[in-house]
Amino acid sequence: MESTWVPDVSPESPFSLANIPFGIVSTPDDPSPHAAIAIGSHVLDLKVISSHPKFAEIFPSLNGHHGVFSQPTLNGFAALGRSVHRAVRGSIQELLSTGTSHPEVLKDNGELRGKALIPQGSVKMHLPMSIGDYTDFYAGYHHAYAVGVMFRGPQNALQPNYTHLPVGYHGRSSSIVVSGTPVRRPQGQILLDPAADPGKPTTAPSRRLDMELELGCFIATPNEQGSPVKIQDAEQHIFGYVLLNDWSARDIQSWEYVPLGPFNSKNFASTISPWVVLAEALEPFRTRGVENETPLQEYLKEGRDDAVFDIELEVDLETPSGDVTTISATSSRHLMWSFPQMIAHHTLGGCPMRTGDLLGSGTISGPEPKQRGSLLEMSEGGKKDIMLYGMDVRRFLKDGDTVTIRGICGKSGDRVGFGDCVGRIQAARLG
Amino acid sequence: MESTWVPDVSPESPFSLANIPFGIVSTPDDPSPHAAIAIGSHVLDLKVISSHPKFAEIFPSLNGHHGVFSQPTLNGFAALGRSVHRAVRGSIQELLSTGTSHPEVLKDNGELRGKALIPQGSVKMHLPMSIGDYTDFYAGYHHAYAVGVMFRGPQNALQPNYTHLPVGYHGRSSSIVVSGTPVRRPQGQILLDPAADPGKPTTAPSRRLDMELELGCFIATPNEQGSPVKIQDAEQHIFGYVLLNDWSARDIQSWEYVPLGPFNSKNFASTISPWVVLAEALEPFRTRGVENETPLQEYLKEGRDDAVFDIELEVDLETPSGDVTTISATSSRHLMWSFPQMIAHHTLGGCPMRTGDLLGSGTISGPEPKQRGSLLEMSEGGKKDIMLYGMDVRRFLKDGDTVTIRGICGKSGDRVGFGDCVGRIQAARLG
Repeated sequence: MESTWVPDVSPESPFSLANIPFGIVSTPDDPSPHAAIAIGSHVLDLKVISSHPKFAEIFPSLNGHHGVFSQPTLNGFAALGRSVHRAVRGSIQELLSTGTSHPEVLKDNGELRGKALIPQGSVKMHLPMSIGDYTDFYAGYHHAYAVGVMFRGPQNALQPNYTHLPVGYHGRSSSIVVSGTPVRRPQGQILLDPAADPGKPTTAPSRRLDMELELGCFIATPNEQGSPVKIQDAEQHIFGYVLLNDWSARDIQSWEYVPLGPFNSKNFASTISPWVVLAEALEPFRTRGVENETPLQEYLKEGRDDAVFDIELEVDLETPSGDVTTISATSSRHLMWSFPQMIAHHTLGGCPMRTGDLLGSGTISGPEPKQRGSLLEMSEGGKKDIMLYGMDVRRFLKDGDTVTIRGICGKSGDRVGFGDCVGRIQAARLG
Repeated sequence: MESTWVPDVSPESPFSLANIPFGIVSTPDDPSPHAAIAIGSHVLDLKVISSHPKFAEIFPSLNGHHGVFSQPTLNGFAALGRSVHRAVRGSIQELLSTGTSHPEVLKDNGELRGKALIPQGSVKMHLPMSIGDYTDFYAGYHHAYAVGVMFRGPQNALQPNYTHLPVGYHGRSSSIVVSGTPVRRPQGQILLDPAADPGKPTTAPSRRLDMELELGCFIATPNEQGSPVKIQDAEQHIFGYVLLNDWSARDIQSWEYVPLGPFNSKNFASTISPWVVLAEALEPFRTRGVENETPLQEYLKEGRDDAVFDIELEVDLETPSGDVTTISATSSRHLMWSFPQMIAHHTLGGCPMRTGDLLGSGTISGPEPKQRGSLLEMSEGGKKDIMLYGMDVRRFLKDGDTVTIRGICGKSGDRVGFGDCVGRIQAARLG
């Protein structure tokens, strides 16, 4: 990748010229949320850029859509489709590269540069998309297996359907928040001592509050109700990816989830990272997922064996006293189902997807103990202490704990990363 | 209730002066969707009424919100809250009553009457609300029990949590359609012969396509994330009610639903009736629900024993040859959990509800064979023929079948009803 003239782009920045992720910001000069991209330690304000007289020339793919970056969400841009995302990303990369053919627009234009290139520390990030529906899958094979062993033993760890279809459930879109939003510990019905009092719930704050390391995928192009998306076409329906922390209250979950699935254990909050990494930017990092030996139904056959991405994923836990421990290091290659497979399955019966819909991968764990994507797994069902710096320990989250998920691909200088997905636990509100 | 001057209001009409349900229409003169109410065999176009010079005087509660009936959904009106809904309904009832104090506005104003009172047959109904999230509960006690007996026998029919909390799951809001929209039979993974081939799915059109008779409830007033709605306040968050047919593919459901709940078996379509009956209009029809002997958690205690409504509900099945059989006649009093209890439970952990969110009651069945709300129950798990007129039989739905749900309360002349909730099954689209 070519170099950029933008100052202060560290070779270790997740936002290299090879990335160009899109987000929604408000800035000191413009408090109404609008679009930007991240580059190094700055954002490039795309609403400011839109007002330049040469905008139409530099972004020919946005002909007729000049207002798209002034909108408060990325839905309008996403709806324009993959070819436009690709072209716009290319135009931005050209504009920001050292050898840009339009130096007069930004590189050598101190006035516009001062307005459009803003330090990340001085902008506020907003939810990037208006999310119609949110679906959470269960595609992390090692997570499904480990949790299954806990509940049903190794012989019956995976349900019979697990390797035949990407199991998923509908989540709660209203509960999705952008990184940095505090997460209030939920109260709920829990069994304080399931063994002694198997059927006697108490209403109390969750004592087994957990995180889940996931990858999220935003839909760009909708499909009509009644019209399945073929797996060969599914990739063209994807806008881009975010990190996702699907906070989970395990004690609420175990009491409520039979027979219709998780509900209040999940719907209090899910956190996403603020920058949407375009599908295009992850193309170089394709790899083979977890092998599935079960013969697949036709509609799930991809015809390629590099359908998932090798994104390095890490989880940090910061205690209220400020000690930070990296409690997990894994990769998104530990998925057994790809997002195109999830889309093909989700729409098989005709379910309509809309621009801005979010799909979660499910918790991503590797096979090794240090690669677990949830505290439930790390603590072996809440039975074992997870050691932290400062001689502290956890089995589940305490009030004041901060969980940060990070995700990055690529080599120094060409890093493609997500920006942190952060949430701090607030004490429950009773009432 | 006073009489109305509106012509052709049959005493049997579900849309008496005691009702005044709200909907979204497009009309021959105005194709952009906007608000109306139903009265007898007409609609009253509220966008047309809004332009009358005396609108502000007649609708003082809408001060500052004169454009609310020109919007393409009822969300703006719903968000104004219960006291405004009550006042606006009262103003409309006054305007349409024989003794109206404003006869010059509509009753004696032939020109406006011609524009504003439109035969229902010449308007098109649209989805009344923009639905952010859709949640489906399982509050119909006799349905949960009957289905439980089928799967687990009478000793374990109800799960241990059933009488402690209103069990529910997140549905798919993008799949909700307005009455009259055709419903395409979904294809999906099914086990053609579960006994012979327990783990070998086939991809095929559902052979066990079912309907579910439900009541739907729209949220008016949102709650902030992290702030539960107290049960005493829950009623004030409700906008109104619709009939809901939660179409279900039983063969897809039985294979996919473990462990995360129903997914493709439900997300292809759910149909709602077009008119939202305001919570206010159902107040006279309160009654006691199914008794729950389990001691309730504080947050679910209502302090009243008339928390559900006695709405007469019927299901008609029309075969492709045109024979119509009423296959079920039941009442919404067969719910064990009320909508305020569902709202209190749904928000207990802090889940935010937004204006326009939809809650389904779950299938409503009575204790008697003729009172079942699904074909699964009527056919005893698909084992017994349901007899129809014309010597036809069903266990599940055939292509070309039309299912109509009707709901009505009150006496002749003062009927409060919903208008039909209709869907016709189209053949599956393969691919």
